[in-house]
Amino acid sequence: MVIKVGVNGFGTIGRRVADAVALQPDMKLVGVAKTKPDYKAQLALKKGYPLYASGEAGVGEFEKAGLKVEGTVEDLLKTVDIIVDATPGGVGEKNKPAYEKARVKAVFEGGEKARVAAVSFVAQCNYDKAYGADTIRVVSCNTTGLCRTLHTLDSVFGVKKARATLIRRAADPEDIKRGPIDAIVPDPTTLPSHHGPDVNTVLPTLPITTVALKVPNTYMHVHSVSADLRQPVKSEDVIEAFQRAPRVLLVGKDEGLISTAHLFDFARDLGRPRQDIYEICVWRESVMVVDGEVHYLQAVHQEADVIPENIDAIRAALKSADVEKSMKTTDSTLKMLK
Amino acid sequence: MVIKVGVNGFGTIGRRVADAVALQPDMKLVGVAKTKPDYKAQLALKKGYPLYASGEAGVGEFEKAGLKVEGTVEDLLKTVDIIVDATPGGVGEKNKPAYEKARVKAVFEGGEKARVAAVSFVAQCNYDKAYGADTIRVVSCNTTGLCRTLHTLDSVFGVKKARATLIRRAADPEDIKRGPIDAIVPDPTTLPSHHGPDVNTVLPTLPITTVALKVPNTYMHVHSVSADLRQPVKSEDVIEAFQRAPRVLLVGKDEGLISTAHLFDFARDLGRPRQDIYEICVWRESVMVVDGEVHYLQAVHQEADVIPENIDAIRAALKSADVEKSMKTTDSTLKMLK
Amino acid sequence: MVIKVGVNGFGTIGRRVADAVALQPDMKLVGVAKTKPDYKAQLALKKGYPLYASGEAGVGEFEKAGLKVEGTVEDLLKTVDIIVDATPGGVGEKNKPAYEKARVKAVFEGGEKARVAAVSFVAQCNYDKAYGADTIRVVSCNTTGLCRTLHTLDSVFGVKKARATLIRRAADPEDIKRGPIDAIVPDPTTLPSHHGPDVNTVLPTLPITTVALKVPNTYMHVHSVSADLRQPVKSEDVIEAFQRAPRVLLVGKDEGLISTAHLFDFARDLGRPRQDIYEICVWRESVMVVDGEVHYLQAVHQEADVIPENIDAIRAALKSADVEKSMKTTDSTLKMLK
Amino acid sequence: MVIKVGVNGFGTIGRRVADAVALQPDMKLVGVAKTKPDYKAQLALKKGYPLYASGEAGVGEFEKAGLKVEGTVEDLLKTVDIIVDATPGGVGEKNKPAYEKARVKAVFEGGEKARVAAVSFVAQCNYDKAYGADTIRVVSCNTTGLCRTLHTLDSVFGVKKARATLIRRAADPEDIKRGPIDAIVPDPTTLPSHHGPDVNTVLPTLPITTVALKVPNTYMHVHSVSADLRQPVKSEDVIEAFQRAPRVLLVGKDEGLISTAHLFDFARDLGRPRQDIYEICVWRESVMVVDGEVHYLQAVHQEADVIPENIDAIRAALKSADVEKSMKTTDSTLKMLK
Repeated sequence: MVIKVGVNGFGTIGRRVADAVALQPDMKLVGVAKTKPDYKAQLALKKGYPLYASGEAGVGEFEKAGLKVEGTVEDLLKTVDIIVDATPGGVGEKNKPAYEKARVKAVFEGGEKARVAAVSFVAQCNYDKAYGADTIRVVSCNTTGLCRTLHTLDSVFGVKKARATLIRRAADPEDIKRGPIDAIVPDPTTLPSHHGPDVNTVLPTLPITTVALKVPNTYMHVHSVSADLRQPVKSEDVIEAFQRAPRVLLVGKDEGLISTAHLFDFARDLGRPRQDIYEICVWRESVMVVDGEVHYLQAVHQEADVIPENIDAIRAALKSADVEKSMKTTDSTLKMLK
Repeated sequence: MVIKVGVNGFGTIGRRVADAVALQPDMKLVGVAKTKPDYKAQLALKKGYPLYASGEAGVGEFEKAGLKVEGTVEDLLKTVDIIVDATPGGVGEKNKPAYEKARVKAVFEGGEKARVAAVSFVAQCNYDKAYGADTIRVVSCNTTGLCRTLHTLDSVFGVKKARATLIRRAADPEDIKRGPIDAIVPDPTTLPSHHGPDVNTVLPTLPITTVALKVPNTYMHVHSVSADLRQPVKSEDVIEAFQRAPRVLLVGKDEGLISTAHLFDFARDLGRPRQDIYEICVWRESVMVVDGEVHYLQAVHQEADVIPENIDAIRAALKSADVEKSMKTTDSTLKMLK
Repeated sequence: MVIKVGVNGFGTIGRRVADAVALQPDMKLVGVAKTKPDYKAQLALKKGYPLYASGEAGVGEFEKAGLKVEGTVEDLLKTVDIIVDATPGGVGEKNKPAYEKARVKAVFEGGEKARVAAVSFVAQCNYDKAYGADTIRVVSCNTTGLCRTLHTLDSVFGVKKARATLIRRAADPEDIKRGPIDAIVPDPTTLPSHHGPDVNTVLPTLPITTVALKVPNTYMHVHSVSADLRQPVKSEDVIEAFQRAPRVLLVGKDEGLISTAHLFDFARDLGRPRQDIYEICVWRESVMVVDGEVHYLQAVHQEADVIPENIDAIRAALKSADVEKSMKTTDSTLKMLK
Repeated sequence: MVIKVGVNGFGTIGRRVADAVALQPDMKLVGVAKTKPDYKAQLALKKGYPLYASGEAGVGEFEKAGLKVEGTVEDLLKTVDIIVDATPGGVGEKNKPAYEKARVKAVFEGGEKARVAAVSFVAQCNYDKAYGADTIRVVSCNTTGLCRTLHTLDSVFGVKKARATLIRRAADPEDIKRGPIDAIVPDPTTLPSHHGPDVNTVLPTLPITTVALKVPNTYMHVHSVSADLRQPVKSEDVIEAFQRAPRVLLVGKDEGLISTAHLFDFARDLGRPRQDIYEICVWRESVMVVDGEVHYLQAVHQEADVIPENIDAIRAALKSADVEKSMKTTDSTLKMLK
């Protein structure tokens, strides 16, 4: 069986999910829906992706721009087993009734509230919980990053309590409207940030407090994490646990990867599509254990780390593979490291 | 008695110390030493500060530029009770023998190693220890910021353990050569950063671990701090403790001060010289107590917070006032808030 | 006679105009109107400026915040000879009927369309044209900058044709919402930019074409200007003409002022309020004559260069001084250089 | 015959040249020389590029890092027909005697002085002049960009005189050390910039004056160009000329490509290796003719636009193809647009 997938929304996440779906041996990208006939739409057609317009107004606008459109989102929904909703935050919830009406399963993104779906999802944490679910919410890039490493620590050593300061890129690379240009902005000003509770939608029993700030860069968030562990460990033990963990990549001084800028360049050299880094990158030298508490720094590519989770969520919803097989297929088609 | 003060080095810190000395009723600015005849030198002369050249080469260069110079650093040392060494990090230690030879007391800055001076200093933490010392080191902007708030918490509630993630401005506003322009840089890559041990040069018994990263802004560092307290507290208790603490300023949403950019603008509106903020700014809404642990965010103006400490260090060295009187005079001449 | 001045709008320009009015021997700041009770409002009261609320909703909000308010804009209008409208672009035109109804003269800013006022104004270019006018529009920071230097060149040498590429700061220092963070943005994409026609509202016969781009900095625009002159000149002649021109400041390598960052720091050292630079700064070394065409680079402090023009516009409207006397008073109270 | 190519230097340009050489049907990448065993070296080996160490010290360092090295640059020189020297600016000239001694032809980059080679080169401008030359210098990214469009205008319409203001990215994406972070820097302060004379090394008779400034972005320079043409034209004529010109790409509002950030994202969507843009991008809407003078804005990807020229320079030196055939092969292997 080949899973027929549609993607609604073709921005930062939608484009990447579409490309990743197109790489899967067990999936077929039936179409992508977009609101505007810009370069993203042109290149989707070039890649052979059937294009659908979001809303009636849209069809005309695409035709005027000379772009072939197969129909509207409603038409797309008639031909798919599952839809990935990659529309802007909050819009997914409004789209949900249409998906239900069309009797297609749906994957939502982390910009939606947790209530939008039966399960909030990170593949290596709770794949089984999402098995067969009609609606799955892939959590945000930051939450996914925290879940991957903290779940690893919790599984191996037990985590009594965790804290994280999230230093967030203020805007995506192609977003020319958002600032700040020269400031650090507590975001939110009132602590804690929503990331801690969001981690708990995936890992309900992990005590965690988070603080977030925006800074003027465009590529990757960095998290400064600390966790009280349930057993005495050395930094080497933690490094080894991360080495074994899926979708976590240790980087550092030896290979000259000492900033987010170097990770960007590394991804370019790797030949990754859109220089995407699906893995959470932990700086080897930053792993430090002091007095029963581990500290580490990790970098999260905000545009990319959730892409493998979207692919796994599709398989979980459709019960087409168990966690091991799904993650293995995803990781190998995306050429993930390790 | 009026204390005769010289300032060696007229960059970021030196200029500000000179201006602050000139405001003190019990001090006289005898002269400032500089290496280059640039706009800083021109404006020093305009303010009536006697100018001295650092090194022989210098005198000629100043004269060529039409700027009046009184002599060299050696000449300056003959006329002062105490010298504030605001030269680049590491140069102070090389200058020390000349100060000893001239039998003048010396205040060094935080760019020097702790061994340069008898005491590492933050006025509200250990003024008495520096009383009468021949050499005092005012610790760095970041260390001063951490000491002010953590010493407050330790004095009032007792601190069992502290952690801080320092999000550091990468370059000063007039520094056009340093980056990064669009990256987050763990600095150092290998944890912990030196700031924890540096806090311990002032507060020897406080257990603290620090992590530091550079980000692309030019005005103010932000610290994300957490501390395990020895007694149960509410966030209001912590806010009240900070309200009473010297040189700590609570800011927040009510007055619209929600980023370092707004603090910058606030300092401009205040009419502060060079829009300097001598106080450590704690965001009121960020103070949060979770499970016996307090979290808060503070902003540190890297160019300015150590200026009051330099003034107090001068009085401590010369035994010219006790801590209360010195801080009161400093704070009122600098028009500090509260 | 003392001119009674009100200021409607207390943001970037309004605050500075209010402070400048307060410095004039022949003016009285009767009050300032604001929409929100933030730090700007608090500090206005601290300086003793009577505060008025923009709109009814406002009064209550100020009182809730504990700030004393004298009334609304309508009340303010009853007590003034002239109002400076420093509200956001386009709002001024909507406010105009209220000013007419209250029979007060009005000064508008460059964010308004030229039709809002009888005269578009730069003091050294067309003061006499504004003499006695009921409404005057002080043109934008960029237009003011271009007018000051091009009018100088035109008066001394004759300008056949001018071109300028405007490299614009993307956001003001306290504006944390606007980007880009890491991009160059033609703004507008479709050439020419509106600045050329806007120069012609002040200098109607000067042929000029302008191009504008936004870049990620917060302090000062830079203009790359070239002009075909009507007579053969050397670069020294041009430098001399700029030296004699009002409100134009030559800066350069000798004093180390080699970037907008250094100008920022220079203004801090000068002790300028809010480190404002009212003068247009021309880099001495950039003045170059090639084949009858002069090229030069100038920096424009977007928050400040129009402040002296606002003061002069008030005197022109009220016929209280001729151009020479007005500019002299303005320049000396603002401690302008030269 | 297959041309045996070596690449000395594996940074920004060297890596890209190596990848491009590897794509050519008529070339063989014999090896690349590098100074440090970092991620760039690791990924070179992964791609199967034989690795050589620059300097004796190097070999040991690579072996210590577990990377296989074939020898030193001297060894590499024994096996190649031509070497591309992509070492830092100025080092190429020092390397030249070694290339002469080894009797291999050499391609140098634009960081070298023009005297390093017999010809300064842009394929579409002067391929024939470089035919058979022992040494060729591919000019810098900015000079290449100016030559491509100005040569087009000169060929089609005749250019009497050109001017350009270059708004330069201050640092490459992976360069975390260079600033400024928040400033505009005339670079050089003293006009004109070297770019005009550098254009004349390729187009000796074109009168051109250039001005350059650095701004805080990392991806793409933007040039504001104007040229007096020898015949009356409309903007559509110019657009058509650019449409026909090789390696020039018209972009604009219709497809939403309205900033360098959008071009970056476009290149990502295109699937370009390292999101490289080899074409000079001219904004369609920016092309404007005023009074016999054409104005336009173009964006130059500083890391990539010279890559096709390097490939063509290799063929020209070896006399292995005429200009038409070489450019066609280069453009099609690099999947250039148009």
